[in-house]
Formats: sequence, structure tokens, C-alpha cells
Amino acid sequence: MYVAEALGLSKPAAEKLKEKNVLKEAFIKHPFFPDVIDAVRFDKRFAGLEEGTVVAKTIHGVEVVHGFPKIRRALTLYPTIKLHFKGEIVFEEKMNGYNVRIVMFGKNLYALTRRGFICPYTTEKARELINESFFKDYPNLMLCCEAVGRYSPYVPKDVYGVDFDFYVFDVREKRSGKPLPVKEKEKICEEYGLNLAPILAQCKAEEGHVVGRRVVEELEGSGREGVVIKDVNMVVEPIKYTTSETNCNDLSYAFRYFNEYGKDFMFSRIVREGFQSFEFDDEEKFRERCFRLGKAILESLVKSIKDVSEGRRVVERVELIFSSFETFELFTEHLKRSGVNFEVVELKKRGGKVHAVIDRVMKSTTDKIKSHLGGALW
Amino acid sequence: MYVAEALGLSKPAAEKLKEKNVLKEAFIKHPFFPDVIDAVRFDKRFAGLEEGTVVAKTIHGVEVVHGFPKIRRALTLYPTIKLHFKGEIVFEEKMNGYNVRIVMFGKNLYALTRRGFICPYTTEKARELINESFFKDYPNLMLCCEAVGRYSPYVPKDVYGVDFDFYVFDVREKRSGKPLPVKEKEKICEEYGLNLAPILAQCKAEEGHVVGRRVVEELEGSGREGVVIKDVNMVVEPIKYTTSETNCNDLSYAFRYFNEYGKDFMFSRIVREGFQSFEFDDEEKFRERCFRLGKAILESLVKSIKDVSEGRRVVERVELIFSSFETFELFTEHLKRSGVNFEVVELKKRGGKVHAVIDRVMKSTTDKIKSHLGGALW
Repeated sequence: MYVAEALGLSKPAAEKLKEKNVLKEAFIKHPFFPDVIDAVRFDKRFAGLEEGTVVAKTIHGVEVVHGFPKIRRALTLYPTIKLHFKGEIVFEEKMNGYNVRIVMFGKNLYALTRRGFICPYTTEKARELINESFFKDYPNLMLCCEAVGRYSPYVPKDVYGVDFDFYVFDVREKRSGKPLPVKEKEKICEEYGLNLAPILAQCKAEEGHVVGRRVVEELEGSGREGVVIKDVNMVVEPIKYTTSETNCNDLSYAFRYFNEYGKDFMFSRIVREGFQSFEFDDEEKFRERCFRLGKAILESLVKSIKDVSEGRRVVERVELIFSSFETFELFTEHLKRSGVNFEVVELKKRGGKVHAVIDRVMKSTTDKIKSHLGGALW
Repeated sequence: MYVAEALGLSKPAAEKLKEKNVLKEAFIKHPFFPDVIDAVRFDKRFAGLEEGTVVAKTIHGVEVVHGFPKIRRALTLYPTIKLHFKGEIVFEEKMNGYNVRIVMFGKNLYALTRRGFICPYTTEKARELINESFFKDYPNLMLCCEAVGRYSPYVPKDVYGVDFDFYVFDVREKRSGKPLPVKEKEKICEEYGLNLAPILAQCKAEEGHVVGRRVVEELEGSGREGVVIKDVNMVVEPIKYTTSETNCNDLSYAFRYFNEYGKDFMFSRIVREGFQSFEFDDEEKFRERCFRLGKAILESLVKSIKDVSEGRRVVERVELIFSSFETFELFTEHLKRSGVNFEVVELKKRGGKVHAVIDRVMKSTTDKIKSHLGGALW
């Protein structure tokens, strides 16, 4: 099998890979993906390869795209930053979108989601927005980007004033996942006219908790998510830290769809708020945080209960703009194969584009609420 | 084995019981329990027998004490009450303590916790506070009580103005668990001078949501827990409903000891608040509830983080008053065998009684906080 060969796996390792059912389909065979014959993604970590790693058999040969590593989180700025890093660090904005790796296979760009799906919508946008010449000059590198905007299929946000765009936060070796130093990334992005995730501050690791506090407090309330703290040389692994607003937005989202969401997701965000409150709050800020936290949770719960009580289903609505009907069809097929329960509620052509409104139906939450509103006991 | 025999289990059933590891030790052999030779408790449901069912080999024969059944919960008063019940119902106060079954084995009273442990402390109190003649007249019945008070080993609360007392909420057949109708229970308790869990209202099932709403709103803010709604004939199974204060107190408790507690526990209480808010709240009450919920969670988290940051461990402190040193020793042995990590921080004799202050040490929460305060990543 081409995967084991491409990764240089021993026979027993190759068998284990199969046995553990690590590999899943990563794409839909379609002329929109003309270079790819077959592609699989790693559904979990395996033998040092991150979840989301993709191995693609293309008409030009086999490609390995390393998964984007999980970035661990600081619960306190002090002493975490100071202990974790040495020397110069930067606070880069953690933008609020979804993680995409953009690569070139043969003559075309491909956009891979965090989990390793080749997403038709994101790929279409990458081909329209990203300067290809970067990949011709650096065939072994990939762009790790945040895909943000109001017309996002996964994380629609109106924070950045864009319909849809990519912001590069890392340039990495495609095969190994090894990142370039911050300065080199900046230089490359400038050279090829690529958007950069903003760097908000730079300082010595020892002052990180002071500078970090200021940066996070400035982001607070603006809808922006938080920071990724990076060693300028990218030798030490980055860590992340988010605003209270983001923690609360996550909770708001999770409790809106409370029966589709993992309890671990909710729990971890609540505990984060506890640590941040301990580190940041005076009495007044504490009271504000209590209300913000409670409201994030309750408002969402009540909204979903109201929706169902009034005969509606609990849905997450996204609005997307496709450049062709073909990508629209391909994207809905992609959603189907990803196991998403959705409904296209609006579809129209406007100025050569295809505008679609798609509701992701949260069946489990809807059914749970319906049953309790109908008198079912817990 | 006496258990299989007492329950009339077939040979395959008896083997399954063993294989599934359902039975656990229910008591400590000791002269304080003079009637009991051996006793086991059901650690999970088995063949129609509730978790907490106890089979005891006593010097007078084998006794079977049925486990107290799980009472399911309404998430909305309407239409749940109306659909669940027919005819007359009562709203009985759900007191805030722990569930105890009091039985007589031979010549002595024994108090069994919900899970089926014969608790030395609770047994001592039962022998002092409960009128034995009930059991002489009704050897086949048991008293199902809430054990409440400030000197409670499991749920210390100062709500009822008592040091420690029992309030009967059900009288049931010991062996089958079958409950007496509400009126008969009341008559018996009056006859034998037993405290009753207060009945707060009675009405027809169809009006239950209106009456229930009033009762719950009256309890709100008083520290009292909620209601158990019962068919007066006890033919339909009871259901429970709690105040927002109780949901928040539970959350407060769970987040104080957040790493020892199950995420399901937290999640279910948050969702309850959502349904109650939907059914009860106007805009102002909603805002109050947001703050109450957020504060319940955050205050506890921050308190525990502060404790650890100042070098203390996260503990739950209880104060107990034993009538003899023997029961104190037996109780601490009982805690040990239950796997509780505790420390006796004070012990003194006062007026013939033994006063003890015991800290239950929450090691997992303490360690987790310590590690993050020390800079560990999540």
C-alpha cells in the first residue's frame, strides 16, 4: 500500500496501522481535485505522526502532509510562560477561524482541514486567494493558516471585516511539520503578499506574564480570540492562551448544541475561567465574569429550548459563497460524507456566484429538548 | 452462599452475580454491630434488585433490605407532572441530607446508606433518636429517612436548625422495597413520634404544574432543596424537582472539588437550570440566574485555586459528635474502607461526647491545581 511505503513503515508497523483503523478517506474523487488519485488522513496519532496527517497518491507521486500539532494551553500566564520559554518570544494573535494547511499537489492548490479532509470550499478559496508562486519556489513547504470570515463553513465570524480570507500563522515543512522561525515566516509572507496573523508583542520570556497580561486585556471584548505564544526561533513548542470572551463564546456555542457537544469541552473552558479569574480579577471583575459565564451558558440553553418549544429545530446556520455550482455540490457531498446532518435552506445565483444558506441540524439536542418538553424524565 | 439462597436465585443467576462482581462488603465486623455475622451490598442493579440492596447474615437469620430506588427528575413542571400522574398528588419537601434506610436486625437498629454501607455514625444516631417500638410492631418494614443537620458526615447543612436528625419520607417493605401510601406513612410516623419530611401541598395532578411552581418558588432562597412529587397511593413512582439554589449549590460543591467530581454531575445540573429558566424566568430573573449560576461555579473554582496557591490542600471539612470513642474509631475505619482520603484535625471529649473535626482531602483537585499553578500546560 502506498501509505506504508511513503512513510517508510516496517511491515509490522504497516499492519498495526491497518489493524488500529487509523486511516480514513480524506477526499472525494472529482475533477475539481485533478491531481489526486487517492488520499487518506490519520484519524488519530500514529507512530509520531499527528492526527490529521494526510498521505495523497497524486498523478505526480505520493505526497505526505504532516498533521498540524496540538498546541497546549497555559492556564496561568505566570509562571507558565517564564518556565516554558527561554529568550525572545512573540505574542501572535490566535485568530478565530479554522486551521487549514495549504499545499500544492502537482499544479493545483489544496486546502486541508485540521483533521485532514481536503475541503472543497476551502480549496476553492485557496486557489482564488493564495499566491501560487510561493509553492513553486518552495515545493517542500506548506502554509498553515487560519481561515476566517463571515462566509465560513465551520467558524463563521464577523470579527475581521472579511467575507473569507486566510491568515498565515506558520510556514512549515510539508512532510515533517517542522516550522520556520518567526522572522523567516514574516519575510516569506511579505515577499508573496500573504496575510499574516498579527504579531501583537515581542519580549523576553521572563517578562512574558506582564506583556501577555496587557495583550490579553487589550484583546478582551473585541471578539478576538487570544494569543499563541511563540519562541522566535520556533524551537520550543508554542502555547496558547485565550480571552474570557472566547472561553465564554465557546461555552455559549457548546451549550447551544449541548447534546452534540462533549462534556470535556465545556468543563475545560469553565476551568480556564477559574484560573484566569484567580490571576486577573479584582472584586468587580470577578462579578462581571460570573455574570458573563452564567449568561454564556444559560442564554444558549434557553435559546435552544425556546427554538424547540416553538416547533423549530436547533440548527447552526452558515452562509457560503461558492464560485461555481460544482464546488457547492462537491461541498455538500463532503458534508454528507463527514456525517453532518444538514439542509440547504437557500440557494441562489448572484453575479456569477452561488450563494447558499445551509443549516446544520443538531438532531441530538433537538430530540433531547423535545423529549423533556414533552414530559420525559431525566 | 447465603445471598443466593436468601434471594432464591437460580444456579446460573448466582454464578452471574459472582462473575459480575456485584457484591461488596457492607459493614465492619465489630461488637457495635452485635447481630450481624456478615453483610454484603449490591454495588450495581442486579436482577431487579436496586443498587444498595443489602443482604445480611445475622444471628437471627438472613435479612434482605431492598435498595432505595432512584427517583427520576422532571426538567419541566408542565407537562411532566400532568402526564406522569393521575389523581391526587403531594409535594413533599426533598430535604437536603443523605438517604438512610433504618432497619432492625435482631435487637438493634442499623442505618444503611444509599449505597448499602452500614454506617457506624448514622447507626449510633438511629439508635439514639428512633423509637424502636415501630420495628417491633412492624418487623417487615423499614424507615426511609433523610439524615440532616450540621454534624453530618456526608452532607453537613445548617438549614434545619438541628445538630443531626432523621426525617422519614417513606415507609417501605424491607424486603421488596414496596412503599406504603402517603396517609399510612403519616399515621405511622405520628403514632411512633417520628419526624416526617414536610408535605408542602396536595392537589390534583392536572394542577400540579401551577401548585408546584408556587411551592418551588417559596422554597427558593431558603436553603431547602426542592420537592418529591408523589402519587398519594404510591402506585406511580415519585419524581423530583429542585430549586435553582440547590442546582447552584450542587455546582458550587462540584467545582470546589472539580477534579474529584464527574462531568456528568456538573453538566446535568447546568442543563436543569436551562429548563427552569425557560419555564420560570422573566428578563430580570434570567439575569439574576445568570449571575447565580456563574458565581456558583467560579467562586468555588477560585476558592480552591486560592487554597492551593496559599499552600493549603483542598479539603471538605465535617464536624461530628460521637457518643463514644468506639463509634468514632469505627467510623474512621469505615471511611478508610470506603476509600476516603481523610485526616482527623481535631478530637476532644466534651460532656461525655467525642467531638471530631475531619478533613476529607481532595487530592486529585489539589494536585491538578498545584501542577497548573506551577506552570504545567493543559
